[in-house]
Amino acid sequence: MDVSNLHLLSASEAAALIRDGIISSVQLVESCLARIRAVDPVVQAWAFLDPDYALAQARLADERRLTGQPIGALHGVPVAIKDIFDTADFPTEYGSPIYAGHTPSRDATVAALLRAAGAVILGKTVTTELAYFSPGKTRNPQNPEHTPGGSSSGSAAAVAAEMVPLAIGSQTNGSTIRPAAYCGVVGFKPTHGLISRYRSLALSRTLDHVGLFARSIADIALLAEQVVRYDENDPDTESRAPIPFSRIAAEEPPLPPMFAFIKTPIWERVDEDTKAGFTEIIEQLGSQVEEVELFPSAEEAWKWHQTIMSAEMASNLERLWEKSADKISEQLRSQLEAGRKVLAVDYAHALRQITPMQDSFVELFEQRYDAILTPAAPSAAPKGISSTGDPAFCTLWTLCGMPCISLPLLESSDALPIGVQLVGARNSDAKLLRTARWLAANMATT
Amino acid sequence: MDVSNLHLLSASEAAALIRDGIISSVQLVESCLARIRAVDPVVQAWAFLDPDYALAQARLADERRLTGQPIGALHGVPVAIKDIFDTADFPTEYGSPIYAGHTPSRDATVAALLRAAGAVILGKTVTTELAYFSPGKTRNPQNPEHTPGGSSSGSAAAVAAEMVPLAIGSQTNGSTIRPAAYCGVVGFKPTHGLISRYRSLALSRTLDHVGLFARSIADIALLAEQVVRYDENDPDTESRAPIPFSRIAAEEPPLPPMFAFIKTPIWERVDEDTKAGFTEIIEQLGSQVEEVELFPSAEEAWKWHQTIMSAEMASNLERLWEKSADKISEQLRSQLEAGRKVLAVDYAHALRQITPMQDSFVELFEQRYDAILTPAAPSAAPKGISSTGDPAFCTLWTLCGMPCISLPLLESSDALPIGVQLVGARNSDAKLLRTARWLAANMATT
Repeated sequence: MDVSNLHLLSASEAAALIRDGIISSVQLVESCLARIRAVDPVVQAWAFLDPDYALAQARLADERRLTGQPIGALHGVPVAIKDIFDTADFPTEYGSPIYAGHTPSRDATVAALLRAAGAVILGKTVTTELAYFSPGKTRNPQNPEHTPGGSSSGSAAAVAAEMVPLAIGSQTNGSTIRPAAYCGVVGFKPTHGLISRYRSLALSRTLDHVGLFARSIADIALLAEQVVRYDENDPDTESRAPIPFSRIAAEEPPLPPMFAFIKTPIWERVDEDTKAGFTEIIEQLGSQVEEVELFPSAEEAWKWHQTIMSAEMASNLERLWEKSADKISEQLRSQLEAGRKVLAVDYAHALRQITPMQDSFVELFEQRYDAILTPAAPSAAPKGISSTGDPAFCTLWTLCGMPCISLPLLESSDALPIGVQLVGARNSDAKLLRTARWLAANMATT
Repeated sequence: MDVSNLHLLSASEAAALIRDGIISSVQLVESCLARIRAVDPVVQAWAFLDPDYALAQARLADERRLTGQPIGALHGVPVAIKDIFDTADFPTEYGSPIYAGHTPSRDATVAALLRAAGAVILGKTVTTELAYFSPGKTRNPQNPEHTPGGSSSGSAAAVAAEMVPLAIGSQTNGSTIRPAAYCGVVGFKPTHGLISRYRSLALSRTLDHVGLFARSIADIALLAEQVVRYDENDPDTESRAPIPFSRIAAEEPPLPPMFAFIKTPIWERVDEDTKAGFTEIIEQLGSQVEEVELFPSAEEAWKWHQTIMSAEMASNLERLWEKSADKISEQLRSQLEAGRKVLAVDYAHALRQITPMQDSFVELFEQRYDAILTPAAPSAAPKGISSTGDPAFCTLWTLCGMPCISLPLLESSDALPIGVQLVGARNSDAKLLRTARWLAANMATT
């Protein structure tokens, strides 16, 4: 085994090799750090990274394993965390100068769960300003002249550039699925409420989700299994039986899965490369895919999402707006100002639309479909890094809290990845991973 | 047994006598109907009452008992339901001309649960206009020149005037506790989410509660045990183990209960009779009561309640306001107009205050108190029926979703009942009934 290439291992492989004593966590982390030294000067995925501290965590993991104590499923495996999740041992600056030097005293639930699983917290990854649109420094590892997408820019780029096998992000509109698609990795946003958001930047209780990044579906399943937990501090999580993500994701579907191809009302934004890719996938799927029209009310979902997001953001970021408006980007400021004007009746009206839409999707899935097939973004990563691209192909699913996964199955004419998004029924997250693995294994894509 | 006085029986007594075949449901219902003929021309508690249909239900109950089939805990016992709960066999007009002749096709969950327990739905009781402030026709049975309180005016008055032993009401501000206090019966508003509000008039999901009326705490416990149920159609109810209300309410407290006497920031509204009554109770309780200051943020609770109630009412009654504004009272119209102007950020701010306040009360109870002791209303029922009185002594507890009970333990100088309110810890509803029973049994009040 060439220890200089350990950064290429999947998290599942690395965890098994560490558990069996074939490699050490220190070797793995050293390989990741070497990769970071090589590629991060261009990619710039990290908000905070301290190589010595990463190695110190790895040494502790190796020492603990030698004592024979029980170890977690991610023992010694490095994970990156978006810089909107509190970490007791790293600064947490939310991508905003307002939080320069902010050092929380406690871990976010998701960080604590990763530590409990034995993971090495490699560092904090770049987020757009307060997880909204204004970009950070990160570039797309596939082509640094293109945006990595946002807001979880650093998490997607770090995984894509093989600096770390796993990363945590978030999604309030399209902040996990879009950067995953643009950077060419697997991005997974589970059902709303499956992963606790406690001690992370709160933009919108209704819309905020934790998102996951990896280079394989098996790794996504392994990571999900560690962080999907009830947390009494996040009122949207629920006490439930553990979900065996890894086992179910690895199974063959009992029947060939059926896909509902949904163009959505914004299909006209989709570029030719993406259209061609979907045509190809649909041809290959043959009788396993049917084009399905959305129920009419779904056309207004984008408006309702904007009402809810802007109102809840204006509420959650009220103190910032009052005290630090000069340190907020123009784009965010105008969003907050719009949010401050939203009437409670319009906000309540928008909130009331969610359950009926969810019910309509329940019918769709119960009827005959295993997953919705739809683009992750209108195109591959656009050129330029002044914008993080268009989240609109994520909006409807985020609003309904449905699980989504982006798979890097297609490629644009200039060799950039194009994401294929699958959307599952709420709380059928493990099944969605199983369906996604089937699709990835059975598509002979370009 | 004088069958002409069966209307004086408690629900618990009546249910036992019917179960044992000593009286029939028909005899009981006939006695209640006779009482209604005698006193309702003055009290006017009923929105809808069909004596033949009531007797038909009673006959069915008697026939069923004779077959030896299992019977429910309220078998053959008449119950009144406030006319904001849908009933498949009665009109449901919500106290508004807009709903004249409205006949729902399905029962509200609470009505269905009462039927499942064997109850005879005697009729629908008068509500103020859409359960807000504009009074209906009902008068206070203790003195018809005085208001019965509202909005559950008919339910409180019907129980107080011995027309029916049990009644269902609701409370969004003070609509159960206040009329119970004014009419001199026991009123109980359980913890938010314990009783389903499905298929009842929705004013405010955050604040709407189902309330219960009876002439004894034992009857309140019996009724609560039938209607406290998880209902997947009311998202604020939760699946939980059945609460043995009757058993716990009948127990002696393990230790003499400790009371926190809380004046609240609106104590200056309390009249001399009520003050004198409380002075007497506090003297009798001796070392079992301590005056407790509210935490400072509670002073703003009345403002937050108004923000939430007006915004959610404006949202829920939006179609009414758009299409039937001319058929809405001036008072309700101005509330809806105020609600339409509430900003989403102010609404969200108010909502965010609830959990911290609830947490502060948890501390208070865990520290040393079994119940909060406070007035149910600033005075006995005010003279005149153009207003339903002041709900402000209920507002804070409704906002926090805490269980409250009003006990008719005091009397004004002109011989009207004055309610003593006990407030319990959330989800300690049965214990609150036990504490209330202790207080009622141990106070030698005037």
